[in-house]
Amino acid sequence: MESQDLSHHFSKAARSRVPNVMKEYYRFLRVPEMGSFAGGSPCPDYFPFDTLEFSVVHPESLSVKTQANGSTPHAQVIANKVSIQRSVQSSHVSQQIDLDTALQYGIASGNPALYAWLHKLLRTVRHPDVPYTPGPKIIICGGSADGLSKIYDVFFDPWEEGVHKLEDRQGLLVEEFVYPPALAQLKPKAANIVPVKMDSEGLLVDGPGGLLDVLENWNLKKGKRPHMFYSVPTGQNPTSGVLSYQRRKQIYEVCSKFDVLIVEDDPYWNLYYPSSTSRSAQDGEHAIDKIVSQREKTSTGYKFLDELIPSFLEIDTDGRVIRIDTFSKTIAPGCRLGYITAQPGICEQLFRVTDATTQQPSGFVQAIIAKILSGLNSSVENPETNGDKCQQSALWGFDGWVHWVEGLRDKYQQRMITMATIFEQNRHIITESDTVPMFHFSWPRGGMFIWVKINIFAHSLASSIDTKRLMLALWILCTQIPYRIIMNPGKDFAANAQIRDENAYQYLRFCFAAVDEKILVSKSKAFTEACKAFWKFNRKEDIDRILEEEDKLSRGSNGEVQTADDVERMVLEDW
Amino acid sequence: MESQDLSHHFSKAARSRVPNVMKEYYRFLRVPEMGSFAGGSPCPDYFPFDTLEFSVVHPESLSVKTQANGSTPHAQVIANKVSIQRSVQSSHVSQQIDLDTALQYGIASGNPALYAWLHKLLRTVRHPDVPYTPGPKIIICGGSADGLSKIYDVFFDPWEEGVHKLEDRQGLLVEEFVYPPALAQLKPKAANIVPVKMDSEGLLVDGPGGLLDVLENWNLKKGKRPHMFYSVPTGQNPTSGVLSYQRRKQIYEVCSKFDVLIVEDDPYWNLYYPSSTSRSAQDGEHAIDKIVSQREKTSTGYKFLDELIPSFLEIDTDGRVIRIDTFSKTIAPGCRLGYITAQPGICEQLFRVTDATTQQPSGFVQAIIAKILSGLNSSVENPETNGDKCQQSALWGFDGWVHWVEGLRDKYQQRMITMATIFEQNRHIITESDTVPMFHFSWPRGGMFIWVKINIFAHSLASSIDTKRLMLALWILCTQIPYRIIMNPGKDFAANAQIRDENAYQYLRFCFAAVDEKILVSKSKAFTEACKAFWKFNRKEDIDRILEEEDKLSRGSNGEVQTADDVERMVLEDW
Repeated sequence: MESQDLSHHFSKAARSRVPNVMKEYYRFLRVPEMGSFAGGSPCPDYFPFDTLEFSVVHPESLSVKTQANGSTPHAQVIANKVSIQRSVQSSHVSQQIDLDTALQYGIASGNPALYAWLHKLLRTVRHPDVPYTPGPKIIICGGSADGLSKIYDVFFDPWEEGVHKLEDRQGLLVEEFVYPPALAQLKPKAANIVPVKMDSEGLLVDGPGGLLDVLENWNLKKGKRPHMFYSVPTGQNPTSGVLSYQRRKQIYEVCSKFDVLIVEDDPYWNLYYPSSTSRSAQDGEHAIDKIVSQREKTSTGYKFLDELIPSFLEIDTDGRVIRIDTFSKTIAPGCRLGYITAQPGICEQLFRVTDATTQQPSGFVQAIIAKILSGLNSSVENPETNGDKCQQSALWGFDGWVHWVEGLRDKYQQRMITMATIFEQNRHIITESDTVPMFHFSWPRGGMFIWVKINIFAHSLASSIDTKRLMLALWILCTQIPYRIIMNPGKDFAANAQIRDENAYQYLRFCFAAVDEKILVSKSKAFTEACKAFWKFNRKEDIDRILEEEDKLSRGSNGEVQTADDVERMVLEDW
Repeated sequence: MESQDLSHHFSKAARSRVPNVMKEYYRFLRVPEMGSFAGGSPCPDYFPFDTLEFSVVHPESLSVKTQANGSTPHAQVIANKVSIQRSVQSSHVSQQIDLDTALQYGIASGNPALYAWLHKLLRTVRHPDVPYTPGPKIIICGGSADGLSKIYDVFFDPWEEGVHKLEDRQGLLVEEFVYPPALAQLKPKAANIVPVKMDSEGLLVDGPGGLLDVLENWNLKKGKRPHMFYSVPTGQNPTSGVLSYQRRKQIYEVCSKFDVLIVEDDPYWNLYYPSSTSRSAQDGEHAIDKIVSQREKTSTGYKFLDELIPSFLEIDTDGRVIRIDTFSKTIAPGCRLGYITAQPGICEQLFRVTDATTQQPSGFVQAIIAKILSGLNSSVENPETNGDKCQQSALWGFDGWVHWVEGLRDKYQQRMITMATIFEQNRHIITESDTVPMFHFSWPRGGMFIWVKINIFAHSLASSIDTKRLMLALWILCTQIPYRIIMNPGKDFAANAQIRDENAYQYLRFCFAAVDEKILVSKSKAFTEACKAFWKFNRKEDIDRILEEEDKLSRGSNGEVQTADDVERMVLEDW
């Protein structure tokens, strides 16, 4: 079955975009002996680069299994040297990974070799079972934020109060707690943000405030019925929930019925910790559950991938899923490289936006990632192989890639267990009369965060001081000596002001991914110790004193503001 | 004098943007011993790269002077090997060019070291005399197209017919012949495109249809008086004009009077050929004029730069100039790297758009360009230098950079002279009764193009066949055997349909920059030969036959369409 035509959702801006006129002449450029005076490309002979080389670590260096098998501790530093030559001639576009291609203007779908490798990855390893024919396409982008901004451009018209009709105001469905930039990006379009109830997995379909309730009982006086759901299905940010396959199918069914597009923003797709599902906050130990393949149809060929929950893409009969992948969490954020997977009609619109704005990410990073995925090394030229200078060597390829992302899962899972165990074992305070939990949390099922709900109403000052002020005081106390830790206040993740003021402010989000491994234990304990100290405060003055400290810190007495102004200042000091 | 507050020009979308809430916590991250559970950065220990190395050619390898001095022909291939280490510790932000910084999330102003080097380049070498205090800032972007799309985002509201008032429709001032993507990008906002008369330099200030006439006699029934002028001041695309310093000052004065912002898109800033100014189309020889410094105030320290015409920035007393620089033409388009220079208030808005969309270009390219500009090489670690692992070596630096861009000017000037001389010497046809010019052109004063006006009304069939059809036939004839050349039809560069149909269609734009140097002469002659053959056609059937050929070519019998679909097809054939 082919994907549905969903072009009625395209914004006016998207519909008005026309292909770049300069590019209609490209078809002439491959005619033999054509001398091109068309276009505005500079001369490739004057690109000042000769080769690009990089060292990439062994793909199994993070794997717990590898390390348990007695490999040397420095496995991680054994690196393969990879060379990208200035020029590679190959009849296979996927093997033509060279600087000539990387340095010249390209087309908005990205470096052809990278496109080819990602496309193969998509169709064979990542999402072999997308239901519609002839299957999804991809468009390369500069990371998730860039991808999402282009999706909003294609699907949201700006709305102005007093100018446009209320019933024309478009809306975005989100969970109650949501990744803030996903909302901030949409703010200039003034769309409705429509929160839906959630549990520890994520979005709820049934019940009051659930997806079905919101869509069935939509009041047109609030605007148009929302036409898009934004989801981080694996390792939801901030709650670390993972939508089960069953839940994904239920959500899809409702979205299909109400013609709602699903944006699947999945940066933590490989960070799935199924053993957390069976834990309650009472468990003290970590037990590895028996995990079975989640796949209904084709195996990906990799046990690790088969055990992940299939993407929304794989139940997308209509072509209404727009998936965002990024290399930020699997390789490095500085790559600024990602890709969107969607039905061809949607990719065409995203192509036009890309062509008119970013054109494509830097050729350097595209060539580097293509090289890693390809498993090809061309450092040794072999003129005997009929002009094809590529020579295979044991590099990453898809096998290495899967080992690498599995190793990342192992590493982040270890960190998660370390931190969650400390939180679990130290979350109570023993008072004269009772044992009181200072906070609650669900063990993360995926992702990089622990979402902690402070039991703030159990604090002795909760009856005399506004609990929002108490939460701020706790946060500031954590940043102070001897604790010196910082985490994100829950209020920043509320989908709207009501959720912020009634609920979200009681939470803290901890990212266990980036803190130095050596201090993960001590800094996790520091939080529980800060809580214990905080719980002992019983005078209003204790709280006032801490809030005064915040003012000092804000004045930058011992902190540096890392903003544009800050960089500016550093720069001027530099000379 | 400080720059003016021009925030009344900001779009509604720009005004609604708020800083990223996640980033307000960054100031805590530099507090000593702070353990960060904030943000969502992945662990830098798990970034799989060790080092990045590249070979960059000697900066003087393109210089005509160097080659005349008897250097070896292979000077061009002598390359410096540059290494970017995983980690560099330096108290100077400008020297901290390492993978740790390149691979992690950054801030929207870009890699701090690159920002520092570009800032120094701006203030000391490129534009030392910007009049307002404390001077302009920069924001790094993903090339000119990305930069321009962000500028439009900040300064243009979308306009809808029947929804918004006619007098609210914003407008963009452009020259009659204009770079098409600059208009295509604005199309989704439905702004007025307002053409202004031009001569061989560029925009005309005085006279009917000149800038002053358009602004003074603006009719509000056509929309709001335009608030922005888009300019390619050096090597105008497509005409290759260069606005003289005098003209720039006149334009600025009028823009200041009518509160018009100036977008200075200057990709060809270094490709200035002042000797062309004194040439008429009758000259057969190239004479090097005595060029004097164009600067009124501070010398840049480089004779080559002093002889360039100062940027609009250097007469920008108000802070109304927004300058776009790109590395596409000076290093390589595949970099996708550029920067915008403007007053701080405008940069702040551009920072917010960047933060919400692309965030920043890839860390790899930023580190590579920072390394080139810095002239630092850190391939040798020296633990004795007090933790600072940088070691100076003779690399590019600003000196090398200036030599490189001067060498590019020399090379492109050679190409321009080669092609223009052939065109000049072969542009007439001798008929039984007369010597008729088949085309006219001005010698390019800058940039990469020759803008040729075909003398189409002098063709014997002009009285019996629509001249637009004749122009199409000439264009197709050029693509055929034995000529096999392609160039851009002038119609694509018209600011509107009227200019296209009355004037622009008579032109062809030739880019002399990219064609292989070995065939530049033969392919330039091929054009004049195609013209001669075309001039001999005297039957309607000759033209009909050529236009039929175009149909065949369109059907792809011997051409390949390089589009997203084409890549898709290649990819699928690949496996």
